[in-house]
Amino acid sequence: MVQIRASDSHYEALVGADLLRCLGSKLRGNLLGPRCVVVADETTARLFSETVIDSLLNADYEPHLIRIPPGENSKSLTQLAQVCEQMAAAGLDRSSFVVALGGGVVGDLAGFAAAVFHRGIAHVQVPTTLLSQVDSSIGGKSGVNIAAGKNLLGAIHQPALVLTDVSTLRSLPPGQLRQGYAEIIKHGIIADPTLFDSLVHSIRLLASGDPAAWEADLISLVERNVALKAAVVSRDEADLSGARAVLNFGHTIAHAIEKADGYRTILHGEAVSLGIVAACEVSVRQAGLPEEERRRVLRVLDFAGLPTSLSNEFPRAAIRPALRADKKFVGGAARFVVTPRLGSAYLTTDVTLADIEQAIAKL
Amino acid sequence: MVQIRASDSHYEALVGADLLRCLGSKLRGNLLGPRCVVVADETTARLFSETVIDSLLNADYEPHLIRIPPGENSKSLTQLAQVCEQMAAAGLDRSSFVVALGGGVVGDLAGFAAAVFHRGIAHVQVPTTLLSQVDSSIGGKSGVNIAAGKNLLGAIHQPALVLTDVSTLRSLPPGQLRQGYAEIIKHGIIADPTLFDSLVHSIRLLASGDPAAWEADLISLVERNVALKAAVVSRDEADLSGARAVLNFGHTIAHAIEKADGYRTILHGEAVSLGIVAACEVSVRQAGLPEEERRRVLRVLDFAGLPTSLSNEFPRAAIRPALRADKKFVGGAARFVVTPRLGSAYLTTDVTLADIEQAIAKL
Repeated sequence: MVQIRASDSHYEALVGADLLRCLGSKLRGNLLGPRCVVVADETTARLFSETVIDSLLNADYEPHLIRIPPGENSKSLTQLAQVCEQMAAAGLDRSSFVVALGGGVVGDLAGFAAAVFHRGIAHVQVPTTLLSQVDSSIGGKSGVNIAAGKNLLGAIHQPALVLTDVSTLRSLPPGQLRQGYAEIIKHGIIADPTLFDSLVHSIRLLASGDPAAWEADLISLVERNVALKAAVVSRDEADLSGARAVLNFGHTIAHAIEKADGYRTILHGEAVSLGIVAACEVSVRQAGLPEEERRRVLRVLDFAGLPTSLSNEFPRAAIRPALRADKKFVGGAARFVVTPRLGSAYLTTDVTLADIEQAIAKL
Repeated sequence: MVQIRASDSHYEALVGADLLRCLGSKLRGNLLGPRCVVVADETTARLFSETVIDSLLNADYEPHLIRIPPGENSKSLTQLAQVCEQMAAAGLDRSSFVVALGGGVVGDLAGFAAAVFHRGIAHVQVPTTLLSQVDSSIGGKSGVNIAAGKNLLGAIHQPALVLTDVSTLRSLPPGQLRQGYAEIIKHGIIADPTLFDSLVHSIRLLASGDPAAWEADLISLVERNVALKAAVVSRDEADLSGARAVLNFGHTIAHAIEKADGYRTILHGEAVSLGIVAACEVSVRQAGLPEEERRRVLRVLDFAGLPTSLSNEFPRAAIRPALRADKKFVGGAARFVVTPRLGSAYLTTDVTLADIEQAIAKL
């Protein structure tokens, strides 16, 4: 009988404006390094890598920049091997660390590289999209895709620090911002519906043409979402008990829609919006969600510019097989997250595939 | 600030004779499955997979056999991808598990596949070589090789069960048995020198031509080594404090010798034997190991049929660069394990590369 103690770990998530240039000094107390790599895609390398590299150099680190192609195709074992070979060539050892500078793709790939290089070295998440700031940078999940499925290989490996600089969102196109809105609305549904009003307020500030006011307000909005997700994750880090699974609200259907779409026309946040609409429909019928609350969710999705119905051209017939291949259908049984009342959610096996397909048909 | 609780895990290591056919029933209480894969190389698939598959079927599991080519080349990201695609094709989900049926290569690859498939599913180690039974199956380390180095990518992912059937060693060639002797002698040096006498006894029983007596005795010898390694690992599961590092006694030099050899002529256990000889030499000079104890180690290595000197043909010049590339040289400083007295060992940074190279020169 072998007793394995997995050591407790904890880390900080810092949220603020103009934080990138503080990365080096924030790390200095953590006894990492000196060698490190900054993994970025072409866009984030161009926009932010100079600031990040300078900050690390000023704190006596020895950073090396690794560029990956932008887009989902970079989440592959081939790209993982290339990044890890470059990490080795840069002289990284077990005391070194990885900085993931970018959105979800960079965070997933660089986080996975850190999780497996020398069986796990430290990494720092520096998310530069709203989606990654409020969602994917928190919780330690990383992954790559293989032919059999998206995110099918990965690790749960917590970062040493999450440094969230809302100023990186200044240059983000509106479609990319909206992806983040979808996850904020999801957080509102599962844990805190006052986030709806805060999001509406944020969108109005953005439209008002006062970027400074918008950015100042955004700090607290992002911070609330980070704290909310962190609290859920901390109850079930390894994603075993079902507590963490509530974060998948709307995502089972979203993933099936994205797969049916071939990851071509619909952004992840848009698919999540559609998934939320269908999951609310299921919740009305299976969990007693009041109809007026379902309509409230639709109004906030609409206000945020997110889709609430599928276009006529969408290949609806492809959704069903995609749904049945979902990795969340453990042992063949459907595990689905419903909300009985805004601000709460739970995982259930009472929802059948037929229920889900019926809700999708109404999109 | 995010608090991450990494849940405590523990598992059993069972050692006995004719245990393979009990695998299914031993697992039944662990709430795994029903789907699983048995990963084996051509040799272990031929010798043992039928017994293992039958045992799993009898316990109502749904096993699927995955064959990998034998040898170190199977520890690659390419082979990992192939195994994981087959796991997905076999319908494995988060509740499924992997059985690693074989020696170190199978254990490392299948353990890594389990560590990353769906971000970590359960696995069972069924080691079928003495080396993997007394060493690599315990401790949860897995890995693959990339161009930049051996075991450079991997995970620490503890198995749900280690099922060690000493009867699988009946067919093992003497050279393969000797590899395991090297790790037993290492365990004797770092923690319990009475293992030397037990090993000598075991080798004599084998030579006496009474396989039943040898096998019965082997159960307790293997069990003692499993317990010894498990105790060391449990003090430092993540290999951070240095406590676990004592298991690397002799291995820094062994790895450099294997690399200089191009992994061609010298078996791992033989390289470990040479590494032990050199590490004892360093220990005499740097840690006060009595010369008579060094000679005692040489005698037991000799008795076990393990090499204690390098042949004249060996490319000695290639050892130095291989040594300097070792991943255990964290931050450029040499971290080396010495024994001040048989039965104890510690990690030190007092040993220089020159000290190590001097000891290698005497091989």
